[in-house]
Amino acid sequence: MIVLQFDGLIPVVVQDARTGEVLMVAYANDEALRLTRQTGFAHFYSRSRKKLWKKGEESGHVQKIREILVDCDEDCLLYLVEQTGAACHTGYRTCFYRTIDGVIVSEQIADPSKVYANKGQ
Amino acid sequence: MIVLQFDGLIPVVVQDARTGEVLMVAYANDEALRLTRQTGFAHFYSRSRKKLWKKGEESGHVQKIREILVDCDEDCLLYLVEQTGAACHTGYRTCFYRTIDGVIVSEQIADPSKVYANKGQ
Repeated sequence: MIVLQFDGLIPVVVQDARTGEVLMVAYANDEALRLTRQTGFAHFYSRSRKKLWKKGEESGHVQKIREILVDCDEDCLLYLVEQTGAACHTGYRTCFYRTIDGVIVSEQIADPSKVYANKGQ
Repeated sequence: MIVLQFDGLIPVVVQDARTGEVLMVAYANDEALRLTRQTGFAHFYSRSRKKLWKKGEESGHVQKIREILVDCDEDCLLYLVEQTGAACHTGYRTCFYRTIDGVIVSEQIADPSKVYANKGQ
């Protein structure tokens, strides 16, 4: 077993296990990874809010872990997940919904104003 | 057109455009992105060597760009590529060749001792 021990944060790529689509990139610390493995649902560390979060804790758009892969240098993770709803807070299926030239290449499958309307409830 | 302007480095996820496999994560600065767009081949910035590099400059395992996507926050890129040879310096097809429990889930398709034998020539 690989024992990952890292100070600070490492990037996590999240990929849809069914479609192969890359959904998002977020960051994890040791605790986020531990919770992800323990609960079977993706957890991250928010750099802006400076706290742990479970993906979908507000929106319900959780990510059930199917597999966790680690890269050659052991400084990056890949979560293969079953995504519920939209991965992106904008309502798009993936955060990578645009080309660098601004062309939309994904679908908006949720209305963010509704998804986050019950925040805190 | 989205004009990405970033100080420092942003992570770049590289995905095989044909198979959907996530191949690696590296970092880009403005110059690496400019060269990637200009030449049509993936360029990055090496944090350890502190210099720009073209993927495959030594190994020949280049990545031809098919599309560049940007995420919602515009702080991460996704290169969709046609990969020549192995993406990983270990000779595996992808850098994510192991689960977090150490199980190998990819193929070693190149012998790294041969791939890098002609370094500098």
